[in-house]
Amino acid sequence: MVQKPAPDSARRSERSRRAIYDAALALVGEIGYPKTTIEGIAARAGVGKQTIYRWWNSKADVLLEAFLDLGEQAARAAAQSGQDPRDGIPDTGDLAADLKLVLRATVDELLDPRFEAPSRALAAEGLVDEQLGAEFVGKLLEPQLQLYVRRLRSAQDQGAVRPEVDPRIALELFVAPLAQRWLQRTGPISHAYTDTLVDYALYGLAPR
Amino acid sequence: MVQKPAPDSARRSERSRRAIYDAALALVGEIGYPKTTIEGIAARAGVGKQTIYRWWNSKADVLLEAFLDLGEQAARAAAQSGQDPRDGIPDTGDLAADLKLVLRATVDELLDPRFEAPSRALAAEGLVDEQLGAEFVGKLLEPQLQLYVRRLRSAQDQGAVRPEVDPRIALELFVAPLAQRWLQRTGPISHAYTDTLVDYALYGLAPR
Repeated sequence: MVQKPAPDSARRSERSRRAIYDAALALVGEIGYPKTTIEGIAARAGVGKQTIYRWWNSKADVLLEAFLDLGEQAARAAAQSGQDPRDGIPDTGDLAADLKLVLRATVDELLDPRFEAPSRALAAEGLVDEQLGAEFVGKLLEPQLQLYVRRLRSAQDQGAVRPEVDPRIALELFVAPLAQRWLQRTGPISHAYTDTLVDYALYGLAPR
Repeated sequence: MVQKPAPDSARRSERSRRAIYDAALALVGEIGYPKTTIEGIAARAGVGKQTIYRWWNSKADVLLEAFLDLGEQAARAAAQSGQDPRDGIPDTGDLAADLKLVLRATVDELLDPRFEAPSRALAAEGLVDEQLGAEFVGKLLEPQLQLYVRRLRSAQDQGAVRPEVDPRIALELFVAPLAQRWLQRTGPISHAYTDTLVDYALYGLAPR
């Protein structure tokens, strides 16, 4: 139904879309999810609210896409540094090294100030608003966790992980501690910390 | 300054205190932390708000004590079943069994409906309100984590955990996954799940 946009209006659309993402992330970080409205996002982005309603059904949808876009920007930045997380977790045959690389990149992203306030605000709302929480876990968090599942399965094929281990639980041994330290501020996060998590998870706490 | 209460008024005070805890937990679970007020707690508990101000400085203090009290009630219930978590984590010499026992009790507590809504509301607020988060982590969460540190140190003395392992990080391998599944609803929690976490953490994912 919508006419195919000419190149000029496509560029304008792309600019509007980016402005809307930025406005949505900034607002939710500043005033929280409950007080963020489509009207507020439109005003801050300098677009009419009909522009937003044309592309998205709800503020949750806007934010979901804004976070996906932020993740893609991080991926593009990482790609320029030689690593592209969109391709999943690297598989060099050295599981510990591959996991450490990806977790170090995650630490860097979690410490990025553009990411911090909006993620925290959204996670907080997801704890109490079950529907929003399920949407973000399902569309944002779980697909990332499945990249670890795939890498751990490959490690099982290579004999680097015990065959009876459930990869979906195993990944939590290094992902959840990082998430909790960052979310609940129970401790500092760093590359040395996530390296340690990987070593403990792979080789266990008990003497070998 | 306050006159020592006679036995009768001590009983009345204890009743008021319990009513205030119940009201505070119920309110924060129903309407969230930001909208919960001392006035609202007083009205629901059927006491004057001066009664609350006499004992506590802020709603955060009331809630902190209400949660500590809830934990003590759980401990008393556990004590009647032969285990008292106030004494710390049991040390039978079998680290895996001791950790599984305590984590199973934690699963039961997390699934207790009296605990669920207020804990989630408070955790959510702690993510965005840094001061509140620090207070609850410092006074409520970290003291519990230190019980695991003590048990892991004892396991190191017994040769059941590698001497170079940092107990404060190691405990996160089984505590943080449970916390994340419960808080962010990323997966179901059960005794079988926490048993698996303990086995993976102690014996590692890599073949031995």
